[in-house]
Amino acid sequence: MIKSALLSIGDEILIGQIVNSNSSWIAKEITNCACEVVKISTIGDGKQEIINELDDLLKIADLILITGGLGPTHDDITKQTICEYFNDTLVESAEWVAKLEKQFAARNWNLTPRNREQALIPSCSEILYNRIGTAPGMLITKGEKRIICMPGVPQEMKCIMEDAALPKIKEWVKESGEEAIIYKNIQTNGISESLLADTLEIDNSYLGQSSLAFLPSYKGVKLRIGAYGDNYDAAQKEMDRISDRIIGRVKNRIIAIDETPYPKILGDLLLQKGLTLSVAESCTSGMLGGEICSVSGASEYFRGGIIAYSNAIKTEVLGVDPSIIKSHGAVSEECAIDMANKCALNLKSDVSISITGIAGPDGGTADKPVGTIWIGYYVKGETFARKFHFGFEREMNRERAVQSAMAELILELQK
Amino acid sequence: MIKSALLSIGDEILIGQIVNSNSSWIAKEITNCACEVVKISTIGDGKQEIINELDDLLKIADLILITGGLGPTHDDITKQTICEYFNDTLVESAEWVAKLEKQFAARNWNLTPRNREQALIPSCSEILYNRIGTAPGMLITKGEKRIICMPGVPQEMKCIMEDAALPKIKEWVKESGEEAIIYKNIQTNGISESLLADTLEIDNSYLGQSSLAFLPSYKGVKLRIGAYGDNYDAAQKEMDRISDRIIGRVKNRIIAIDETPYPKILGDLLLQKGLTLSVAESCTSGMLGGEICSVSGASEYFRGGIIAYSNAIKTEVLGVDPSIIKSHGAVSEECAIDMANKCALNLKSDVSISITGIAGPDGGTADKPVGTIWIGYYVKGETFARKFHFGFEREMNRERAVQSAMAELILELQK
Repeated sequence: MIKSALLSIGDEILIGQIVNSNSSWIAKEITNCACEVVKISTIGDGKQEIINELDDLLKIADLILITGGLGPTHDDITKQTICEYFNDTLVESAEWVAKLEKQFAARNWNLTPRNREQALIPSCSEILYNRIGTAPGMLITKGEKRIICMPGVPQEMKCIMEDAALPKIKEWVKESGEEAIIYKNIQTNGISESLLADTLEIDNSYLGQSSLAFLPSYKGVKLRIGAYGDNYDAAQKEMDRISDRIIGRVKNRIIAIDETPYPKILGDLLLQKGLTLSVAESCTSGMLGGEICSVSGASEYFRGGIIAYSNAIKTEVLGVDPSIIKSHGAVSEECAIDMANKCALNLKSDVSISITGIAGPDGGTADKPVGTIWIGYYVKGETFARKFHFGFEREMNRERAVQSAMAELILELQK
Repeated sequence: MIKSALLSIGDEILIGQIVNSNSSWIAKEITNCACEVVKISTIGDGKQEIINELDDLLKIADLILITGGLGPTHDDITKQTICEYFNDTLVESAEWVAKLEKQFAARNWNLTPRNREQALIPSCSEILYNRIGTAPGMLITKGEKRIICMPGVPQEMKCIMEDAALPKIKEWVKESGEEAIIYKNIQTNGISESLLADTLEIDNSYLGQSSLAFLPSYKGVKLRIGAYGDNYDAAQKEMDRISDRIIGRVKNRIIAIDETPYPKILGDLLLQKGLTLSVAESCTSGMLGGEICSVSGASEYFRGGIIAYSNAIKTEVLGVDPSIIKSHGAVSEECAIDMANKCALNLKSDVSISITGIAGPDGGTADKPVGTIWIGYYVKGETFARKFHFGFEREMNRERAVQSAMAELILELQK
């Protein structure tokens, strides 16, 4: 397999001011291209530090992806240092000057000499197009080794990766004709890790050199297939063999065969079926509504909700029957169903979700310990509720409730 | 300054399955102890990789902090490898066996031989107490060099750092008598970067070798003071000099002199003043309510809210006067104030916040472009509203609205 290393350059990571999410994003994408990541490092904006690290990384990797230090200010020295490292000189790219002129003219801005310097690239490099920023991505090829430089701004880095770098890396992996591992994630919900394993009946003899990881999280169990092949195409065939088995056996618990976020999957289903949605939330206090509308266009199906945090709001504003809370408590199947019912009725939606539970750390009893959450549903006249037992940690319980609430509705609407 | 390097060991970071938030957390804490972080690396669970990286890091750093690979399974090899690296042997710590026995007995679990192996530590190491997990932290001192090993589980790592490692590091920095830089963050809101700079009148001649960074984010502008001194105590004095100036000049725009999250600051103020709160949210669709209740004990002051995403919910459920929406639109000062008014009235709270705006990417007009947000307040009979112009990105606009909504109320209640 092609071995790669990731290098982030920037003092702001070393002082902990920002989390290095670029590296984990790149690592995931590169791994999904069947390219192995052997090391990730972060160093400061010092010339000698960059040179030493390049020396080290070129010993262990065929491909180095560098982010950061490509901006127009004095502390951005990545380009100059790499040029020096390869005994190269910076030349102005006519293509990039034209791109900058067009981009600046469109905004009625002047292209200053400092901006124009962004078009200087090492003479041995190839431009990797950056559709949203002023610094180009660069690919330098030296014998068997390749170096990709990108700005540290996450949006720009992602554009360059998606538009230019990842397609190239996929090609290199295929051309290498070397053994390959490709990955795919399947999102399941509402089925435990052990029941999943029993149902799938996938053991090492079935997998051979491929792998199947069970990744439990607050969004259910994600299955990560690592399909192995002598080359890229063989790995692809192996992927089909394994994922077909999974889909065949647990179809009714699969939320998606990719990493689409729940709110998008749910929104698409509601749109497709022409249904409107509302929510009634107690312990999650609006988080579910917040998540659902993280998708643009949610106003097509989402009407609104009631944050019924206190019992008074449950009865006086949402309209829950006080006798239900009196006899069964606010955290009960009966209350969850009445909340869903009244929510759909008062907010005039086809579908509604209610959440009522004990997020913790206080409020638990022997009967209803911290982490007990009831989620109620109203779907075109039918109601039902599900009980969950999550953990002891407040924010985790609330997050899990929100994700489970969407997951159960997705599975219901997929039926 | 004492130079440190951070090393994360674990394949799950290299394949991008998890974001390396441990490193940024440690980097920030270490920097705050006036200890410099010169490099952060991540490598896989391979013996030779660990040895090579230790070789490299010991060349550039006095202190190495290692996370990961301390678990009880076969792929956790950090302890053994470090032992080998220093020609040391593993010995059982009687102190740690006793701790494990007590911990397991309390849960009625058996201490298996595999669990007991967690008490094996290199003979030259000192235990750094881990109050929540089974793997101890370890400190190895070799001449001028120090190595700290911790489990990769973030909660356990943080406990060990806070309880044992950070106090030691602070001592080492003080004892070293070397020059020191200490950091402090001051959270401001509702004042622009340029106005802040003009008001503070802090230039390089005032700062000397200290620094002041303006860090704008969706939570306002954070001021990061880097106070420099010939030794730790001198840096502390310098810190007081600079922060006193800042507090003196922009007191009415300071949310907090530390990094306490907004919901906690707001909750404490409401409790202190004995006030209850409710919310009416349109474009943020519950996110504000969700944030406010991220603090345990929020039920003491938070009553609930209405997610008035559609105009029908604004009028029919929240009770906004339809003629206001007709004449001024839903995104207007008048609508924001009526939403806050009706929210406090119908949900019977002393204080309420309303948010109505155009999150985007669609829905903008020439008059009210995407990013226009009105936030309304009702505080014990008084109402007022603030207009904001954020950007073009949906989730950023929603997040900024939520943070600004809390910030303005905090500043109002602090008066």
